[in-house]
Amino acid sequence: MVRRLEAGGGDPGRVHTEGRNARAVVEDAREAVASLLGARSREVVFTSGATESINAATWGAVRAGVPGAAVLAADVEHSAVRDSSARLAPVVPVPVDSVGRIDPTAVEDAVARARREHGAVALVHCQWANHEVATLQPVAEVVEVAHRNGALIHVDAAAAAGHVDVDFHASGADLMSVSAHKLGGPPGCGALLVRRGLRIEPLLLGGDQERARRAGLEDVPAVAGFGVAARLLASGGLEGEADSALRFTTDALNAARAVDGVDAYGDVERRVPHIICFGVQGVEAEAVVLGLDRAGVAVHSGSACSSESLEPSAVLAAMGVDADRSVRLSVGWSTSEADIGTFAEAFPRVVEGLRALRG
Amino acid sequence: MVRRLEAGGGDPGRVHTEGRNARAVVEDAREAVASLLGARSREVVFTSGATESINAATWGAVRAGVPGAAVLAADVEHSAVRDSSARLAPVVPVPVDSVGRIDPTAVEDAVARARREHGAVALVHCQWANHEVATLQPVAEVVEVAHRNGALIHVDAAAAAGHVDVDFHASGADLMSVSAHKLGGPPGCGALLVRRGLRIEPLLLGGDQERARRAGLEDVPAVAGFGVAARLLASGGLEGEADSALRFTTDALNAARAVDGVDAYGDVERRVPHIICFGVQGVEAEAVVLGLDRAGVAVHSGSACSSESLEPSAVLAAMGVDADRSVRLSVGWSTSEADIGTFAEAFPRVVEGLRALRG
Repeated sequence: MVRRLEAGGGDPGRVHTEGRNARAVVEDAREAVASLLGARSREVVFTSGATESINAATWGAVRAGVPGAAVLAADVEHSAVRDSSARLAPVVPVPVDSVGRIDPTAVEDAVARARREHGAVALVHCQWANHEVATLQPVAEVVEVAHRNGALIHVDAAAAAGHVDVDFHASGADLMSVSAHKLGGPPGCGALLVRRGLRIEPLLLGGDQERARRAGLEDVPAVAGFGVAARLLASGGLEGEADSALRFTTDALNAARAVDGVDAYGDVERRVPHIICFGVQGVEAEAVVLGLDRAGVAVHSGSACSSESLEPSAVLAAMGVDADRSVRLSVGWSTSEADIGTFAEAFPRVVEGLRALRG
Repeated sequence: MVRRLEAGGGDPGRVHTEGRNARAVVEDAREAVASLLGARSREVVFTSGATESINAATWGAVRAGVPGAAVLAADVEHSAVRDSSARLAPVVPVPVDSVGRIDPTAVEDAVARARREHGAVALVHCQWANHEVATLQPVAEVVEVAHRNGALIHVDAAAAAGHVDVDFHASGADLMSVSAHKLGGPPGCGALLVRRGLRIEPLLLGGDQERARRAGLEDVPAVAGFGVAARLLASGGLEGEADSALRFTTDALNAARAVDGVDAYGDVERRVPHIICFGVQGVEAEAVVLGLDRAGVAVHSGSACSSESLEPSAVLAAMGVDADRSVRLSVGWSTSEADIGTFAEAFPRVVEGLRALRG
């Protein structure tokens, strides 16, 4: 990335030498991302991140559908999925169980309701894994329901890609969104996978970049970083990362549950390995976050999972869980055994301190 | 930027230390960009680049307008302006003169036509300067016409910001788009300025970042780079840059015009200092680009100004100029006297060689 920044980024759309060098970097990265995700290179469209990918997938699918057709989204989908859908189409919600998992039968019921109320279904969303409570979703079954009912399906794989095997072709999905920074790449970069043969209108217009599927000068340094991260994961790195992530989060969860009144949220078995979420009775999550921060550990509170928002997490609400008492912890490539030790030492102390204050 | 990349970017939406550090970097950059552009910090919304800013401005303004209301855009606006408008509203074109300049009277006429045919005008676009032929536009006059007629006005300042004085407040514009990489910052970053008090629906939904005006994790490293570039320009750097850019492009244009059958396009006097465009009779621009590339000079052909597109430039078509014979040259902070010397030496040789080939 630093080399590309020093080269000024470059414009892969130009025929001069600088442009051709930039093009080579972008196409290398595209192959790496495709390889990680079980896609063809040509199916990979680089974006500014998963939020843009999701907004673009929703836009394209709704514009390609019958006017007035519904969109299906589970209550545990990321707000980018729910909000980008709700402004463009009637959204029929899909309920989840107590660990936040979508039941394909519930999708089938929602399709029936959507057809009754809105005539047709343009798009079904199904995340690969939940971004707050880590639960893996039954993607293949939901894809089957969507396709049997003539709808496109978009999979938000931002919380899963690079952490578990995500295979775009095997999943049967039409559209898939991923984020670079959530798998060790840089911020400001992501991808939208578009199934071969599927033509959808781009969200960003104004240039023929990305084979006329996403306008705007390519962010060559960020794409290069995304490519390096994807290549490391695709060439054997994923398993090792996933193993240590699972060990770290299991240890952290065990340490947390050793404290009275701590409950795990989500499916602690069938989950992505790098995320855990748990509730702490009797204390505000925000105070736990600040207490752990003083000990050098950065975690999130469930009431702020949607970033900068003061609204409680819709995911936890859908699961019937108290967001104000919830803490989310994620690990990445830079997390060490020592970090987990710091958490395990600090967490009981912080919680007991807060509970003592409440008297 | 490298420091921020090493820190993993950071999430300015979090309350932990890492998050607060990232927030400080973003807010410093916001102040620098605001200061460069004569805006308040709170009016600056960071985006992934000018293409996104323009698409977001158009989206927000059209959604805020009366359904069915028209959008006005000159034929010389960037394709991001024209294409993002055409899919959302009827576009009434505004003609330009032979140097690509918009006549405020023509805007007045277009407003009258738009009202007659579509009932109302939601948005008037007016670029600050043309991105291909450098001509400065009469922004203040067009703003006056737009506001007198109850329309919002968006200014695409991507080709001007950092190269001439651009003052958002003094211009009276409601919305303004700028790009970081066009003023010495990194690719993958830009800003949309939104006039205080103006509420428009974001293009990207799914998070309350940027005070709920642009969802998606902030690209902290890129924003940091944008801020550094803006601060250097705002604190006295702009004048020096503009002076040398004007000298370089004037020398290059004189060298080019010393060759028979070379004509300058656009207004060579009232222009942004870093861009020139000229036509070369009797040879294909693409061949000139490749010939200059072999000499180490990267220029653009008029037929590829819209990047990756094989369509001739709409700007040059609107001016009645042959895009296949047009070459565009721009200079930046890294351009040296020696680069201009190389161009001045190579250009006559390349053109004469190509003309000799044609015999």
